[in-house]
Amino acid sequence: MASGDPGERHGGNLTAAAQRLGRPAAELLDASASLVPFAPPLALRWALVQAVFTPALRAYPDRGWRELRRVLARQHGLEPEEVLPGNGAAELFTWAARDATDCGLSLLPAPGFADYRRALGCWGGRWVDLPLPLHWGAAFPQPFPSLQQAAVLWICNPHNPTGQLWSRASLEPLLQRHALVVCDEAFLPLVPGGESQSLIPLVRSHPNLVVVRSLTKLLSVPGLRLGYALGAAARLRRWAGWRDPWPVNGLALAAAERLLADQVGHQRWCRRVQNWVARERPWLERGLGAWPQLTPMPSSTNFLLVRGSHSLLDLRLALERRHGILLRDCRSFPGLGEDWLRIGLQDRRGHRRLLAALEQELPGRQGDAARR
Amino acid sequence: MASGDPGERHGGNLTAAAQRLGRPAAELLDASASLVPFAPPLALRWALVQAVFTPALRAYPDRGWRELRRVLARQHGLEPEEVLPGNGAAELFTWAARDATDCGLSLLPAPGFADYRRALGCWGGRWVDLPLPLHWGAAFPQPFPSLQQAAVLWICNPHNPTGQLWSRASLEPLLQRHALVVCDEAFLPLVPGGESQSLIPLVRSHPNLVVVRSLTKLLSVPGLRLGYALGAAARLRRWAGWRDPWPVNGLALAAAERLLADQVGHQRWCRRVQNWVARERPWLERGLGAWPQLTPMPSSTNFLLVRGSHSLLDLRLALERRHGILLRDCRSFPGLGEDWLRIGLQDRRGHRRLLAALEQELPGRQGDAARR
Repeated sequence: MASGDPGERHGGNLTAAAQRLGRPAAELLDASASLVPFAPPLALRWALVQAVFTPALRAYPDRGWRELRRVLARQHGLEPEEVLPGNGAAELFTWAARDATDCGLSLLPAPGFADYRRALGCWGGRWVDLPLPLHWGAAFPQPFPSLQQAAVLWICNPHNPTGQLWSRASLEPLLQRHALVVCDEAFLPLVPGGESQSLIPLVRSHPNLVVVRSLTKLLSVPGLRLGYALGAAARLRRWAGWRDPWPVNGLALAAAERLLADQVGHQRWCRRVQNWVARERPWLERGLGAWPQLTPMPSSTNFLLVRGSHSLLDLRLALERRHGILLRDCRSFPGLGEDWLRIGLQDRRGHRRLLAALEQELPGRQGDAARR
Repeated sequence: MASGDPGERHGGNLTAAAQRLGRPAAELLDASASLVPFAPPLALRWALVQAVFTPALRAYPDRGWRELRRVLARQHGLEPEEVLPGNGAAELFTWAARDATDCGLSLLPAPGFADYRRALGCWGGRWVDLPLPLHWGAAFPQPFPSLQQAAVLWICNPHNPTGQLWSRASLEPLLQRHALVVCDEAFLPLVPGGESQSLIPLVRSHPNLVVVRSLTKLLSVPGLRLGYALGAAARLRRWAGWRDPWPVNGLALAAAERLLADQVGHQRWCRRVQNWVARERPWLERGLGAWPQLTPMPSSTNFLLVRGSHSLLDLRLALERRHGILLRDCRSFPGLGEDWLRIGLQDRRGHRRLLAALEQELPGRQGDAARR
């Protein structure tokens, strides 16, 4: 397969990578997706196994998603009608993009997640890039740098791929300026202290706001497909009328209902994840900073955007082919090129494996002390 | 909940019915959906349990669905690029409807599956009803009764809700008359001898044909969400570009790949299902025919459309509330009204339970001999 294969460029396609490299998936270190590196909650896996032997598998999923809406609404202080489960966050972007297209021009921060463009393209929607400065400070949250006019604003908080956490204070006034604001908070529950910047408390008072969340990253279950939108009941009813009646599979519904019903357990999981981010991000940042050719950019969350002093394409390919380590090629992010890589945080062992591989592939490492 | 609740009207919403009736779902006999009544293949359930502990859960699903496409293509004698897995058949109707809307006016047999209308409505598509005669013979296959002009024809074979099997010989000429033909064969693998009427052998030679199939009914796994489209590679590539990158969950992918790789085992399962249909449909038909108020219409597949001599609404509600038996209200099928019910075949025990309940609720049963 050519290195220009979209699967390789977008990352997170472990099956294809394993085939391409002729190695079992379990041997690879996949830092191209940005997932929690520890096993999903045992309660979730157990609920899934049980679901295989219940109507969760053998009956059509509840078309009203009543139970999951109820637990998610309670978690976020909203009404069940203000919650719409989706087949991952990506499915919900498709419907958000239909609303956006009806509203007019969309403003898309660049570099940014390519799937917003895919979704707008599906409806023939128009957009312009909002170029983000490619330098930023290390203190979070930061003010969102938009003053541009457009009907619709797509926000990703924390921002993918830069890792910046935007302040709620800077986002709130934008709700007055745009007919529709779509805020993707897929990574927010992983950010230490991140929830205090969430726009969810503004959903009730702003019918032009939709917040999209994902359980994929937080629970490390991208195979399950589970996200949800929070917004005005009338908007979500409209979306549900457009899409097919059973977008969320019954196993995901059953497992999420069970998991989220245990609020204390879920909060404990979130703290564990945030503690991991708080511990491992600075460690890896320091490690990477030992190479003068690499500049890890400040991040609030579980991935690091790394700027190279020159193209990092050969380095990425060498890490993949010789070490079984997958990093995120950034050429699919508008505004970035082959001198950028995104690295999803791993556990300490994974980080050591990455640094050891870098030491073989990239000459010129300096002592940590020499650099910091 | 009011009896006008859409969930109740459409059937197959076991969770909602159980809540409404205040009874555990396991106590209900759900003949409102048309699913195989025996447990899904053990190999499938075992594959699902294993998948919970593998990258099927913890990695993003393969964006190219390579392995599943390969086994499905082999099964149907096509190339992998001519196969597109979907999040159930319903998700694929959404994209078929986008193509249909671009082509022009759609012709929808009525009564027919409401989801085609939902999908066309999503794109602002236009359609006209093709009224089907509400009397038909008992010999299958039958000629498809269309001579109307329209850009797009939606076919359901066997037809839902009438149960008629259309002959390939009558369908093939329609491929010359319509710019696009969408053929929903969700129930075809359940029909004894049904595969000989499939349009799949025409896919390769007719780029204006898309066949949609579902594993939901055949394997009794509506909670898993797995269907697929067979059509021209260029069309399916276009669909894949519109929708989100991970519409099919990883557990469904892993389980289906495993199951379908065993061709012999899968064929054995199909024979078992068809034998059940061949055995139970005439038995239930005879049983229902003992009531002069009920006319079970001839069917080729695993459901029976029943015509009442008057409204069957009270009967349906009584069966539900007093006996925990769910039948399909037909008011959501354009062209049918409250004097029609659709009954999904069950096992013999389920059929005896249904007939016993009918005997309590519907006076005037005659001896089988008196009627036939």
